[in-house]
Amino acid sequence: MFETEAARLDAADSLAEKRQLFAIPEGISYLDGNSLGALPKSAIVAIDAAVRDEWGEGLIRSWNTAGWVDIAQRVGNKIAALIGAVPDSVVACDSTSVNLYKALHAACGLRPDRSVILTDVDNFPTDLYLIDSVAKERGLRVVALPRNEIIDAINQDVAVLELTHVDYRSSAMYDMADITGIVHRAGALTIWDLAHSAGAVPLDVTNADADFAVGCGYKYLNGGPGAPAFIYVSQSLSGSISQPIHGWHGHARPFEFSRSYEPAAGVDRMLVGTPPVLSMTGLSAALDIFQDVSMSELRAKSLGLSTFFYQLAEEHLVTRGLGIVSERDSNKRGSHVALSHSNGYSIIRALIERGVVGDFRRPDILRFGFAPLYNTYADVARLVSEAIDIIDTKYYLAERFTTESAVV
Amino acid sequence: MFETEAARLDAADSLAEKRQLFAIPEGISYLDGNSLGALPKSAIVAIDAAVRDEWGEGLIRSWNTAGWVDIAQRVGNKIAALIGAVPDSVVACDSTSVNLYKALHAACGLRPDRSVILTDVDNFPTDLYLIDSVAKERGLRVVALPRNEIIDAINQDVAVLELTHVDYRSSAMYDMADITGIVHRAGALTIWDLAHSAGAVPLDVTNADADFAVGCGYKYLNGGPGAPAFIYVSQSLSGSISQPIHGWHGHARPFEFSRSYEPAAGVDRMLVGTPPVLSMTGLSAALDIFQDVSMSELRAKSLGLSTFFYQLAEEHLVTRGLGIVSERDSNKRGSHVALSHSNGYSIIRALIERGVVGDFRRPDILRFGFAPLYNTYADVARLVSEAIDIIDTKYYLAERFTTESAVV
Repeated sequence: MFETEAARLDAADSLAEKRQLFAIPEGISYLDGNSLGALPKSAIVAIDAAVRDEWGEGLIRSWNTAGWVDIAQRVGNKIAALIGAVPDSVVACDSTSVNLYKALHAACGLRPDRSVILTDVDNFPTDLYLIDSVAKERGLRVVALPRNEIIDAINQDVAVLELTHVDYRSSAMYDMADITGIVHRAGALTIWDLAHSAGAVPLDVTNADADFAVGCGYKYLNGGPGAPAFIYVSQSLSGSISQPIHGWHGHARPFEFSRSYEPAAGVDRMLVGTPPVLSMTGLSAALDIFQDVSMSELRAKSLGLSTFFYQLAEEHLVTRGLGIVSERDSNKRGSHVALSHSNGYSIIRALIERGVVGDFRRPDILRFGFAPLYNTYADVARLVSEAIDIIDTKYYLAERFTTESAVV
Repeated sequence: MFETEAARLDAADSLAEKRQLFAIPEGISYLDGNSLGALPKSAIVAIDAAVRDEWGEGLIRSWNTAGWVDIAQRVGNKIAALIGAVPDSVVACDSTSVNLYKALHAACGLRPDRSVILTDVDNFPTDLYLIDSVAKERGLRVVALPRNEIIDAINQDVAVLELTHVDYRSSAMYDMADITGIVHRAGALTIWDLAHSAGAVPLDVTNADADFAVGCGYKYLNGGPGAPAFIYVSQSLSGSISQPIHGWHGHARPFEFSRSYEPAAGVDRMLVGTPPVLSMTGLSAALDIFQDVSMSELRAKSLGLSTFFYQLAEEHLVTRGLGIVSERDSNKRGSHVALSHSNGYSIIRALIERGVVGDFRRPDILRFGFAPLYNTYADVARLVSEAIDIIDTKYYLAERFTTESAVV
């Protein structure tokens, strides 16, 4: 229906050729890169080489010859470039959850006289779970408030404010520099969860003076399912922090196998065990795609896609009962959009069957991620066309869509 | 030199054909499977399929269609079969270090009135680091003693005894059932680190009544560099434990994204973040190789290799200044052997250059792992021949071997 306009926009897209770097399945409009990024063709080659050459041929020697020994730092530095961090302030390791656990302990440890961890009550569930758990371990109190009440609650009791920069459901985006400034003036520290931001929106943790950040390797960074996560610590803090999961890779001299733990000099003390080399290799290859693209160019494309979507959605989907949940102010949203519908689950399942892949979050949220490296305006047009048809024909009411058999 | 005897032994080896399942590099005698297992050919195929088909084609749908949703449990059950655990008492996840951290907290939490974590002073460094860290967090005291003083120190103060079943340097092996019995009679709990045991020696955590165990996926299990680790919890305990790293995969209903944490019913509560699917797939494929082999058959081969090695070493290497560190009593050692030499580092480097790959641990330990699935008696003969030549010709004194340039 909207193919002409989409074709015009795609023809003018300066990032259009990047899509060729990904192995997108034939016939699929993949709008779930906010959950799992698409497969870079270069990752296929890199992982196969890591398996056959590094593991198979090099075997244990690859710690030296293939550079496994500092793969966490090398991949971390590629991520640093995407979030505005200085070199050697980011490492890739563990899961986002484990990294957040370490960051929470490290941050609270720097404010031992304060009593509160402050957060958004609509934060990603794992963030809430970990905040509760670390607060309990350290005898702190959790204050979890709605988004618009956070700033007023930043006071001298607060040790740490932990926020997810872009909300996983609504896509609402916090102003990192603004909030970090307020937090610092109250003498507290920030931890930013960049799971839905890194690789999708411009970030500048250095200029924002962010203290800690964690993030995910497999969403907009396209590192593959369960790819290692990352952790950033401001260099002004990393020499004085401690986290409790003391593993050999966080030691100052890991290969000395010393009996007592001595933390590494900087952010490396956030490392724990042996790096998952194969998954790390996929992430490393995926990150190279960002090397010749600026985050502002990516952001412009992302907003181009979501703005086009909003135009079509307001004209064609709102009248069909779909609510628009995400912020319309493009300065306040990330790279996915969220709609609502009481039959959202069935509509998403029907869309997926038709080859338009988004996802569903309870109770009624339909999410569509616009990954600027590989999504097209044609993907957006197809999403809206299929949604119109599925609703108008009541196609989504078929029993195979209404039964909750799938987990995602 | 010893080729004839080795050839005779290889010809009689009932496991000889298993070697064909691995991609061992041409010309290499790989005796470091205790550090990083060799590459199963099936893992090459499985990982490539996970990359291209599950990630590339299936994308987010693979949570359902490729079974990512319970991959931690499926791989865990394959490991359960190798360590004598009942189904659904093992999950594969995180690193050994992170799993040990969780196990230590869970175990200490079950004995809140006790004051001591007991361990072996020569334990693997990360085990010592984590015991120190968790003890500090929980206000406990660490008692770290030499191996022969452990049993006498098991008393009513002890909450947990944490031991590495097979010592990473000496290969000395504890009697799991015997020690667990003593620990239980004192009202305490055991955590066994099976990093150097799983896949190499027969284990029966059920009959030994072990409480907790952790282990490594990339040594004798051949899961690939940095493969996920595993954690076992006795089913009599797993419903009543808690660990502090609360992530969405440890939740009773992960995909409900509930705001409050409710731990999963059993060992699943030890899970934290998203499983690293590609690394998990390599491990899963590697584990299938064990399906038609009994651990007693593997153990017999392992002891065959090390007994042959000891015969040759006592005749040819001891006289050349190499000490034998490992237990000669085969009931008390694992699947690697340890020698000592003041120039051990240089000798290992020279052996590696000649294609015989072992490794070195400070201050003077040369380690050679005998992986019964793929090592041959010819590998053992070659190790001894090359060691004789390297020592007799003083080949190892070349400057390229004495400079410590490599980390491993």
